Amino acid sequence: MSTTSTPLTGVVPPLLTPLTPEGDVDLPSLERLVGHLLEGGVDGIFALGSSGEVAFWDDARREAVLEAVTGTVAGQVPVIAGVIDMQTDRVIQHVRAAERFDLDGYVVTAPFYAITGPQEIDAHFRAVAAATERPLWAYDIPVCVHAKLAPGQLLQLGRDGVITGVKDSSGDDVGFRRLAAANRAAGSPLTLLTGHEIVVDGAYLAGADGSVPGLGNVDPAGYVRMHRAARTGDWEQVRREQDRLAALFEIVFQPTDKVGPAAGVGAFKTALRELGIFSTNTMAAPMTPIEGESVDRIRAILEDTGMLEQAGAGGPADV
Amino acid sequence: MSTTSTPLTGVVPPLLTPLTPEGDVDLPSLERLVGHLLEGGVDGIFALGSSGEVAFWDDARREAVLEAVTGTVAGQVPVIAGVIDMQTDRVIQHVRAAERFDLDGYVVTAPFYAITGPQEIDAHFRAVAAATERPLWAYDIPVCVHAKLAPGQLLQLGRDGVITGVKDSSGDDVGFRRLAAANRAAGSPLTLLTGHEIVVDGAYLAGADGSVPGLGNVDPAGYVRMHRAARTGDWEQVRREQDRLAALFEIVFQPTDKVGPAAGVGAFKTALRELGIFSTNTMAAPMTPIEGESVDRIRAILEDTGMLEQAGAGGPADV
Amino acid sequence: MSTTSTPLTGVVPPLLTPLTPEGDVDLPSLERLVGHLLEGGVDGIFALGSSGEVAFWDDARREAVLEAVTGTVAGQVPVIAGVIDMQTDRVIQHVRAAERFDLDGYVVTAPFYAITGPQEIDAHFRAVAAATERPLWAYDIPVCVHAKLAPGQLLQLGRDGVITGVKDSSGDDVGFRRLAAANRAAGSPLTLLTGHEIVVDGAYLAGADGSVPGLGNVDPAGYVRMHRAARTGDWEQVRREQDRLAALFEIVFQPTDKVGPAAGVGAFKTALRELGIFSTNTMAAPMTPIEGESVDRIRAILEDTGMLEQAGAGGPADV
Amino acid sequence: MSTTSTPLTGVVPPLLTPLTPEGDVDLPSLERLVGHLLEGGVDGIFALGSSGEVAFWDDARREAVLEAVTGTVAGQVPVIAGVIDMQTDRVIQHVRAAERFDLDGYVVTAPFYAITGPQEIDAHFRAVAAATERPLWAYDIPVCVHAKLAPGQLLQLGRDGVITGVKDSSGDDVGFRRLAAANRAAGSPLTLLTGHEIVVDGAYLAGADGSVPGLGNVDPAGYVRMHRAARTGDWEQVRREQDRLAALFEIVFQPTDKVGPAAGVGAFKTALRELGIFSTNTMAAPMTPIEGESVDRIRAILEDTGMLEQAGAGGPADV
Repeated sequence: MSTTSTPLTGVVPPLLTPLTPEGDVDLPSLERLVGHLLEGGVDGIFALGSSGEVAFWDDARREAVLEAVTGTVAGQVPVIAGVIDMQTDRVIQHVRAAERFDLDGYVVTAPFYAITGPQEIDAHFRAVAAATERPLWAYDIPVCVHAKLAPGQLLQLGRDGVITGVKDSSGDDVGFRRLAAANRAAGSPLTLLTGHEIVVDGAYLAGADGSVPGLGNVDPAGYVRMHRAARTGDWEQVRREQDRLAALFEIVFQPTDKVGPAAGVGAFKTALRELGIFSTNTMAAPMTPIEGESVDRIRAILEDTGMLEQAGAGGPADV
Repeated sequence: MSTTSTPLTGVVPPLLTPLTPEGDVDLPSLERLVGHLLEGGVDGIFALGSSGEVAFWDDARREAVLEAVTGTVAGQVPVIAGVIDMQTDRVIQHVRAAERFDLDGYVVTAPFYAITGPQEIDAHFRAVAAATERPLWAYDIPVCVHAKLAPGQLLQLGRDGVITGVKDSSGDDVGFRRLAAANRAAGSPLTLLTGHEIVVDGAYLAGADGSVPGLGNVDPAGYVRMHRAARTGDWEQVRREQDRLAALFEIVFQPTDKVGPAAGVGAFKTALRELGIFSTNTMAAPMTPIEGESVDRIRAILEDTGMLEQAGAGGPADV
Repeated sequence: MSTTSTPLTGVVPPLLTPLTPEGDVDLPSLERLVGHLLEGGVDGIFALGSSGEVAFWDDARREAVLEAVTGTVAGQVPVIAGVIDMQTDRVIQHVRAAERFDLDGYVVTAPFYAITGPQEIDAHFRAVAAATERPLWAYDIPVCVHAKLAPGQLLQLGRDGVITGVKDSSGDDVGFRRLAAANRAAGSPLTLLTGHEIVVDGAYLAGADGSVPGLGNVDPAGYVRMHRAARTGDWEQVRREQDRLAALFEIVFQPTDKVGPAAGVGAFKTALRELGIFSTNTMAAPMTPIEGESVDRIRAILEDTGMLEQAGAGGPADV
Repeated sequence: MSTTSTPLTGVVPPLLTPLTPEGDVDLPSLERLVGHLLEGGVDGIFALGSSGEVAFWDDARREAVLEAVTGTVAGQVPVIAGVIDMQTDRVIQHVRAAERFDLDGYVVTAPFYAITGPQEIDAHFRAVAAATERPLWAYDIPVCVHAKLAPGQLLQLGRDGVITGVKDSSGDDVGFRRLAAANRAAGSPLTLLTGHEIVVDGAYLAGADGSVPGLGNVDPAGYVRMHRAARTGDWEQVRREQDRLAALFEIVFQPTDKVGPAAGVGAFKTALRELGIFSTNTMAAPMTPIEGESVDRIRAILEDTGMLEQAGAGGPADV
């Protein structure tokens, strides 16, 4: 097992789940994607996140994804897995089903569907932590669960050893900076990763330890270069990479007739198909794939940002 | 099987799930609750709804609840069941697990967690309908799924035979009236039930065919009397019952330190314990039961509204 | 001055402000509108409300409207006036400017733009009340001010003599019923009017003392008949009128390219022009009037609901 | 007049309005505040913004503030002024009243209270621009006006010469980066200033031309140092300043019994009183000043961040 005693930091893309035209996991595409990420130099992989379409899978599919991912990664980098469900009992059930895989931690959201308050959120994380020896990451994603995890609560969970880190997809950069500052003042019990693809540079300045960029499936090398530049304090390089990645991120705004993951994850899948890594851009039902002129516009952005060229030269390379 | 060719209308309480102190389904309490509802004259029972804490149960618990409920009801009234989950595949999985039970239909929400739009919502309901012969009810509950089902879309799904009715918990009385009017103009393809306990009278004026009141677990006879009065056009009686039930509903506002079902369902469970029907007011984890002065205030409201007296006389009776 | 010692109840339409093509107050149209309302039997008139486009007027225009309205009504029914502005000082300034007109009260919202809490809202209403001898109405309109007035706070303000009543445009029918019940239990210090045109019948059941329907500009007689039927307990008549008015209200959903008052107030103005009461359907800048097929659809609804026929026969008549 | 042909960039604090205990403008405190800002090296001053409590002032007070501010600044740096009101006519009225003062531009929000859409927002900005020769700034502040200005719309208004820049207080860092990138690609027709005090560093990386920090009233020199460091590419210095300013910003979270400007602006005023610059921390009605232990906690933060020491030494100095 690849579990390391050092905390997971750096670039940890939320792995997309390539599908066959029939909607099954497309293993050859998955192998190409994992190869693409490892070649790009990522520090870890986050399976079964929102970008992995976890919300759309039944239990058997979740297991199939974990089996395929851990088998393909084969311990080359740490893998953490989302155990995302409505409330505590189902989350713990997902943890139990995942224990047999080579995983370095679980990613847990606040409970959702039924409204809960801070007391229930606290009890939820503690109950899940009690069900496993592996580290937990709190996933702060109010756009999906409609509750914001308070900085003070996250820090307390970190101090108590309940969670090891936070994946912040809250869109609240002010809250993130306050969390980062409070975490530092407390001796950094938490590792902080940002999920917002085009403001990772600002998150690094604020104190992020890494990023979980959905767009990192498309251009892992770019995020890795940005991370290394941030570590060495080369902020002009950080900014240059971020600006280029922000230009690439415009692909998610092209499918104007779609919302949510049908637009965002759909754009990533479409890009990976255009780059020759995915065989299809099929989405989990009830979503449908991006088609028509939206694909053309995505392809044009790939060209403008130099992605197609890299792929044509036999895969992404350092620019 | 009790499936009837006539549409289910009238009072269909969303059944609470009584728990033992250890958190298992409390069968004796469940039997008393079902007896209480049937004695009150309800027209059907809705199992595994939000009030049944469906969000908190794993698959095994859901099956246990359906087994216990259908066994106890034993065909005396129709039972419909919530098959509530994040996205299409899991909902269909719940349908398949429920097919062996004596059920008269399934209740389905819009997809949640991952953001979806009208196209995905449409595909979602059609895919679930294709997976069963039993009728589907659309459950409009934006407070949980954060999407409002549009009247036009519901009506189209009704005309196409995808759904048989709507359980409206949207809190949008203007939208409900527009839906009711459009439904009537289209020949009433949909049966419309309201889930808002204290404005059922207005919903009846607007055109509701019945109600799904969580508070109906506590006072089923009151809702049945209100329904019958509405059917015979005795609106003064309707209002009198509604006003009394509104006074009783104040129990959900007593636990000031709780939110969501921990407050609302918790108050119903506490009331049923005080009435001698439940053995405990235990809630599903991560929620905790109502305690202390909140219980006293709930008890005082039960007294003021004549509920304790009825219970003391050997169970609820017509007043 | 027409101030009466009895509270204002019944039908109190929020008066539209007819404009000339150049955007000035159109006095002949205003006189026809007031005549239309008085002929319809309304119990009062609410000038400078949201439907009167108050948000769009500078101080001089507000005064011109009050001058024109009070001059035209000439004490035949009570007139209350909106003194709506961002925070306390400006509201008091509007009160001072309005004191010279024959008005029976002022309508005040919670403060807006700058976020305030319950303490500031309380101080706001008390400061405005201290600035005038005339009665104040609290205008609960979260869609505009983004704060909901809590039932308990409204009741306390009523008990303390700060406000005489509430115009509820909150869209929260559960909250309205709770307010109505608490008000009755407290000896009815507050008069409660609802602003939701198509669920007035339910509000009457809940305990409303009247309505402030924007649509009442178009069909005042319909709302007056509904009110009288509610007072005599003829609920079938109430429902019949409400259903017809709800069908008429569909005019506001026809301009699919507009939102807010440009759609709603714009539809009322367009209808009044088609009925021969307004000369134009001009809106306050930056809004533009409804044009094209939307007008045709509005006209068709007027026909379907019998409004054009009435107008053709020389004005609205009892049907 | 100090109007310059070069665009206003850099640090432009939104000027607080010091009040006497009776609630009048406190001229000596205002002079000290302006001196404090100029000594700190600010590039401009924004009068009558949200932090200036503009929402709470009547027209006479607004004029008094502009008179006092422009008189005190006396052309040493550019002054821009908020002309914030509900809809177009009133905004233009504020512009007209302000034309006699030595101002370098006006700051305009989207219309509010009445809901408007993109068409009305566009017409609004164009109508205000047509009323003056002076430059307009779009103020993107959804927390107050409940509409987000779309990047594409802002850019079009910039290209058409309607607005000269944007003050972004949207809290949407992803949107800000997209706006900055699109602006650069279009030849930078817009000057972009951020209003979020503790993530200014990230905004600089994204492409901000300056900041409008409310906290800049308290520590203008810190924001000026950060701006200069960003201009010279000394990002470690940028970060150091931002981290210290973020620690200082914690003062706004101390008054736990207050919300909105009563907490935020109230904390700034309290800090300035503790620093000897303001005579009182009086707030505009209906707000009340911060008192008790909250003041102690604010003072402790001023001590911890070295602010009191600077003040004790005769005013802020470079650290």
